[in-house]
Amino acid sequence: MNIDDLRTRLPAGAVVNDPDILAGYRQDRALDPAAGTALALVRPTDTAHVATALRWAGEHRVPVVPRGAGTGLSGGATAQNGALLLSTERMRAITIDTVTRTAVVQPGLLNAEVKRAAADRGLWYPPDPSSFEICSIGGNAATNAGGLCCVKYGVTTDYVLGMEVVLADGTVVRLGGPRLKDSAGLSLTKLFVGSEGTLGVITELTLRLLPPQPPQSTVVATFRTLPAATAAILAITGALRPSMLEFMDAVAINAVEDELRMGLDRDAAGLLIARSDAPGDHAGREADRMLTACENAGATEAFRTDDPDEGEAFCAARRFAIPAVERKGPLLLEDVGVPLPRLGELITGIAEIAERRKVVVSVIAHAGDGNTHPLIVHDPDDADETARAHEAFGEIMDLAVALGGTITGEHGVGRLKKAWLPGQVGPEVMDVTRRIKAALDPHGILNPGVVL
Amino acid sequence: MNIDDLRTRLPAGAVVNDPDILAGYRQDRALDPAAGTALALVRPTDTAHVATALRWAGEHRVPVVPRGAGTGLSGGATAQNGALLLSTERMRAITIDTVTRTAVVQPGLLNAEVKRAAADRGLWYPPDPSSFEICSIGGNAATNAGGLCCVKYGVTTDYVLGMEVVLADGTVVRLGGPRLKDSAGLSLTKLFVGSEGTLGVITELTLRLLPPQPPQSTVVATFRTLPAATAAILAITGALRPSMLEFMDAVAINAVEDELRMGLDRDAAGLLIARSDAPGDHAGREADRMLTACENAGATEAFRTDDPDEGEAFCAARRFAIPAVERKGPLLLEDVGVPLPRLGELITGIAEIAERRKVVVSVIAHAGDGNTHPLIVHDPDDADETARAHEAFGEIMDLAVALGGTITGEHGVGRLKKAWLPGQVGPEVMDVTRRIKAALDPHGILNPGVVL
Repeated sequence: MNIDDLRTRLPAGAVVNDPDILAGYRQDRALDPAAGTALALVRPTDTAHVATALRWAGEHRVPVVPRGAGTGLSGGATAQNGALLLSTERMRAITIDTVTRTAVVQPGLLNAEVKRAAADRGLWYPPDPSSFEICSIGGNAATNAGGLCCVKYGVTTDYVLGMEVVLADGTVVRLGGPRLKDSAGLSLTKLFVGSEGTLGVITELTLRLLPPQPPQSTVVATFRTLPAATAAILAITGALRPSMLEFMDAVAINAVEDELRMGLDRDAAGLLIARSDAPGDHAGREADRMLTACENAGATEAFRTDDPDEGEAFCAARRFAIPAVERKGPLLLEDVGVPLPRLGELITGIAEIAERRKVVVSVIAHAGDGNTHPLIVHDPDDADETARAHEAFGEIMDLAVALGGTITGEHGVGRLKKAWLPGQVGPEVMDVTRRIKAALDPHGILNPGVVL
Repeated sequence: MNIDDLRTRLPAGAVVNDPDILAGYRQDRALDPAAGTALALVRPTDTAHVATALRWAGEHRVPVVPRGAGTGLSGGATAQNGALLLSTERMRAITIDTVTRTAVVQPGLLNAEVKRAAADRGLWYPPDPSSFEICSIGGNAATNAGGLCCVKYGVTTDYVLGMEVVLADGTVVRLGGPRLKDSAGLSLTKLFVGSEGTLGVITELTLRLLPPQPPQSTVVATFRTLPAATAAILAITGALRPSMLEFMDAVAINAVEDELRMGLDRDAAGLLIARSDAPGDHAGREADRMLTACENAGATEAFRTDDPDEGEAFCAARRFAIPAVERKGPLLLEDVGVPLPRLGELITGIAEIAERRKVVVSVIAHAGDGNTHPLIVHDPDDADETARAHEAFGEIMDLAVALGGTITGEHGVGRLKKAWLPGQVGPEVMDVTRRIKAALDPHGILNPGVVL
């Protein structure tokens, strides 16, 4: 395929096929070894360029792999042989309307940049993936990303009021808008959120913002056993509204402690970080109830801090858990979730799988959501261990599905988990998915091989 | 069409074609005079019956009009000649899981019944259409219904975690579930919410519940001019998170006062009811800031009450506004919304339309959402006035669209507003809508004539 024709339709520099540059866009953070070699990379600066690229791709039946900041963990932005990579990284405009409390953002802005722009105007954009400093807001919408505050504040879709999206044939469509209620027609905005680039390329988002989050009170508790930690989680979620409720297991605690030397209890089976952002002294009171719940569940140590820096240090430790465990070896990163009452069974079941497959699996979790990230450590040079790690990877998803759960709570299906999707949702839902995909992308050029 | 074949496939009594009974199901609260005569009414008690009815309808290409409690205001449940009416009113099971804080409900339960069942277990289902005592939860999901608390707590879709839905061909599909985060596959759950019976029949919902709402502090303020009232609204939404922010204009104030004799200021141009449910004494503090905002905007009278009965009396007065105005004459009921900064232009523009068309239009509003309900009073025996009322009806929607708004914030498009939908969303979105409709209901048997 000759891309000169596309090059002439777009501004100078928008189309790149230098192999060295393309190499940097071959994978996302899933590091899929099956990544291919793209035909070219397009870095549009506006919606019209995206439409031009998609029209060209449609005419020539060239597959398109849309891409935000490349921090995806499910291989949704992995390069394919002969595909056009479409990176939105140069689309970075943002405007904020403080009266409607909305932001209109282009997809290439990082989540942290949206948060900062909102904060500069006295507002707050809640969704906070652990990767918020490096992940793009467009990718957040494409995967319906979650984060730590979602236990109280919901996930990305809850903040998307509208969008501009370019369809497979290059048609530019505006959906929703800065209206806090709108039931005119089908809920298409919500359909495109989480569609992982398979239905269209999001070129603009209208996001709902909130007043600033009140100061949080933080509880940290350690437990000698996993059931004690799980009991504390359910006691908290059943009675209170934590603004964060995070879990780390022994492997993660030790990996973080190895790096940060915070004085975490290396003998603990699990550590919980719970926060309240109720106004004024109610944060402290709600945190005290969380503290009591932890103590009643048998915490070996539990304390509350209202010091923002100290609270943030524990949250940062939790966010650092994935990189810390990653220093032990490459990871297969899971994202399984279950209904909260099944959380204990999920965590003990994962331990059984790890033992049977003789691999290290560290479990960290957005515990209040029932959303866990089992991290399977393996040595890629050890073919046998790698095989066992992949067995465990599939078994953990099977376990989550058997417990009424999901194979992905917030990362998306991508390429790495699609083999497990039919097992979770069933053939009828797969059929509906295929019908909608065919209706909106009849030639299948948008991110083929992702989800379906 | 002979329905005996359908009758034999369903339990005794599930299929009715007694004209007297059918007459009670001819219209919803939109009272569409164009309602037709249905072939029969089906009142299933379980999902299998719904599937049977839809399979039969599909085989015979009989249109199906799904129906909850018949309280819709856009004509989405209006009987059509030769159609099968499918009422979910007998599907009334509910189970509540206090640990996951979810309810699994069948669609025929009333919103108030869901609220009460949740409250019995110490939980809260927030969405609260004014009709919550008489509207069904299935209808709420089908229209993505809103209400008064939505300014802080969001609309129905924000609480729907999963559903069972029967497709046009009778296939039963389960989407989502009691998982607080789930990004596995397309966001189909959200697509069916608000689809007004055009894509499937919802037979079960999994709803997210919250801990009980804290006691609310209430502010009531009256204004001599509409711009003063609007200024107070924007001052409140720009800085605070009201748990309710409602508006009534002079016509509504007087209509309510005629009925309830509460001592409302009959000379006021507008009345605001604002509430805070921040924990403990923070409700009072936030309410005081709302009070100050009203005073600064020029309120002629403004007071705060923390007495729950007194606060509820004002909310009840607001909910009673539509029936009160209706006693002045039959209504054409609008549901237009705009981005908040345009609210003042919408309200003054409606007054101009009323004057030009010589009809009484009363405006009540979920002001904090920018969602208004202009009520056009007319005498159906006066053909000229009725014609002018219908002119105003269309002009108000045109005005909302011109202001960047929506023709429906929470009632749905139904049959009455569909002529205005393309003007709001544009031909490309209509095309996407038609493609999805065709993909999921290729023979077009589900609620034909609604939305599309």
